[in-house]
Amino acid sequence: MPTISQKGRSMPESPIRKLVPYAEDAKKRGTKVIHLNIGQPDIKTPQIALDAVKNNTLEVLEYSRTEGSEAYREKLANYYAKNDIHVSATEIIITTGGSEALAFVMGTIMDTDEEIIIPEPFYANYNGFATAAGVTVVPVVSKIEDNFALPPIEEFEKLITPKTKAILICNPGNPTGYLYSREEIEKLAKIVKKHNLFLVADEVYREFTYEGKEHYSVLQVEGLEDNAIVVDSVSKRYSMCGARIGCLVSKNKEVIKTALKFAQARLSPPTYAQIASEAALETPQSYFDDVKVEYVARRNLLISELEKIKGIKVAKPQGAFYCIAQLPIADADHFAQWLLESFELNGETVMVAPAAGFYATEGLGKNQIRIAYVLDKENITRAVQILKAALEVYKG
Amino acid sequence: MPTISQKGRSMPESPIRKLVPYAEDAKKRGTKVIHLNIGQPDIKTPQIALDAVKNNTLEVLEYSRTEGSEAYREKLANYYAKNDIHVSATEIIITTGGSEALAFVMGTIMDTDEEIIIPEPFYANYNGFATAAGVTVVPVVSKIEDNFALPPIEEFEKLITPKTKAILICNPGNPTGYLYSREEIEKLAKIVKKHNLFLVADEVYREFTYEGKEHYSVLQVEGLEDNAIVVDSVSKRYSMCGARIGCLVSKNKEVIKTALKFAQARLSPPTYAQIASEAALETPQSYFDDVKVEYVARRNLLISELEKIKGIKVAKPQGAFYCIAQLPIADADHFAQWLLESFELNGETVMVAPAAGFYATEGLGKNQIRIAYVLDKENITRAVQILKAALEVYKG
Repeated sequence: MPTISQKGRSMPESPIRKLVPYAEDAKKRGTKVIHLNIGQPDIKTPQIALDAVKNNTLEVLEYSRTEGSEAYREKLANYYAKNDIHVSATEIIITTGGSEALAFVMGTIMDTDEEIIIPEPFYANYNGFATAAGVTVVPVVSKIEDNFALPPIEEFEKLITPKTKAILICNPGNPTGYLYSREEIEKLAKIVKKHNLFLVADEVYREFTYEGKEHYSVLQVEGLEDNAIVVDSVSKRYSMCGARIGCLVSKNKEVIKTALKFAQARLSPPTYAQIASEAALETPQSYFDDVKVEYVARRNLLISELEKIKGIKVAKPQGAFYCIAQLPIADADHFAQWLLESFELNGETVMVAPAAGFYATEGLGKNQIRIAYVLDKENITRAVQILKAALEVYKG
Repeated sequence: MPTISQKGRSMPESPIRKLVPYAEDAKKRGTKVIHLNIGQPDIKTPQIALDAVKNNTLEVLEYSRTEGSEAYREKLANYYAKNDIHVSATEIIITTGGSEALAFVMGTIMDTDEEIIIPEPFYANYNGFATAAGVTVVPVVSKIEDNFALPPIEEFEKLITPKTKAILICNPGNPTGYLYSREEIEKLAKIVKKHNLFLVADEVYREFTYEGKEHYSVLQVEGLEDNAIVVDSVSKRYSMCGARIGCLVSKNKEVIKTALKFAQARLSPPTYAQIASEAALETPQSYFDDVKVEYVARRNLLISELEKIKGIKVAKPQGAFYCIAQLPIADADHFAQWLLESFELNGETVMVAPAAGFYATEGLGKNQIRIAYVLDKENITRAVQILKAALEVYKG
């Protein structure tokens, strides 16, 4: 039998995926599973986006332009301008989800065995894209005690080698919910300029910032035009994860020109989803205001309920809709599986994402879980009650 | 300024892309450009597929499953069964276009610097996916004199090294229109089994076979279960290139398991497009019959008109909707540009794809062009008249 690649064998499995069969078994036993593990918002997609697709009049579902439709990119440039990010349509490439933007960025700026520094814990799929591109993730540890703030800049400098090509951040952070301040972004800007690196920012949660805090983009830093690359997506912004539309934004012309060659190979991003995404830009501000009120209420409820449980430490998120909780247990992988296999409270249990999968450093995060607060307050309340009751009987 | 990657600099540009500005200039001058250069069919997308999207009742545009929706994969297995290809839904991964299936295949079976043998001329984007994956394309020449039939199997054997992991074919072929016979597929099967390689077949043009010839899939070869991988797509089959839905099919469990890890990193294929693609499977046979009648008429017209031009040699396609024509010129790149810059007949000119971009061997195909007959008979007739008139005055 021909053998698969070493690269394929090294591809990480999703940290949640291995729990799926246990969740399915629990459901088969009649146990209701409350999902704290996925970032699929329950929020309705803006009607204007759904209607645009329902009312489309295409007769031939044609390729769009490789870089995405002209009209959509023009409107997207306006969206950025409203967020005080000044880019033109030619500095935007529409991609199939933020995922594809990440893959294009890796290919555009990194060769095999080169290094990218990422504060951990980080979005687990960064590992997958790095492995697929043959590049090495070098983690720098951010700590729950510091609420997952930017690690001291000396920690980054210690890790920079001749192979380092970029620093990648997710802001606000998945899985941490941490929102980098303007000062932190400026520190990063300084170090990437000093060492001639790219600063790649995954800003897909831009709108989800709380307590009056404002998001500060790497594209807003003056003088960082050649270094800054933003990965973006409509998935969370408009609760349209299934569209698979994102984009790559940079004022570095070489980056755009090169990324476009990767884009040409795959022809074009999906046409229907671009129709939805273009229309979504007309979503009224009230939609976001409502969504934000809802997420803040969910966050506050989740955090205050979690903090009532003895032995739990929670990092208070200022953005996105995730939080990391440290539990009084040794192995969250085992605990998560046990919750699905052996525990229920009034016929219900919870599925959580063990946090070890969000760390690159072996052994870190083993007593942590990531919770996505993308479900309604009743479910959040019951989910925390279940966690509390479970921790009381769990033997580890 | 930080530098982009060597890989990025090596990414090939689309062979057509560099002509686009000349085509735009021609249009600005008021010259009508007839496009023989793109494989975007003018055929209408089946109404049943368009309606399924227009009538969808989604309120939250959610992620689908990573491997594609269960319902769609089940129905797709039925589609394959009707084509005498017997696979189960678990042997199918839905991808974002055939493009993504190709990228997953490269990652799954090949490591950096390993080799894949491809008969040339071949679909130009194979080069892009190979470069992006860091793998090497080793071309084996097929000749216009042989109508682009499978090169002698000894030619393949000469090229096999310890680094060779696979042979990739496109059947029926883009850009050649050649349909491999059952005997040719069986020869390839024998050689990949002998040398423990994968046989990857891009079968996106499966339905487009002419003169009563039947398509024979690598998945139909008995005993080839561990070696055969099919890349497929709805783009051409249902004239829905903009959907961006394809799939990867294999009975090799390791291949599916590994490709699924690449798929997990990008979360899911587009949801709307899966709705369209699932519905498209209900397209009545009459649609395909009509399309085939139309393509055969176009092909016959194109070939007979081209053959009337002195000095032109044409490979007669038995499948897909492309043909390669060899012109009495030295440099088709120059000719194609000249057609757009300096020629018109009654206010019209043509845009063709120079064939050199479909060869990996430097210097081959320089006097050839690829013509896609995806436009109506009136346009084909006028396009060939333009080519004829142009060749009469072209000085090279």
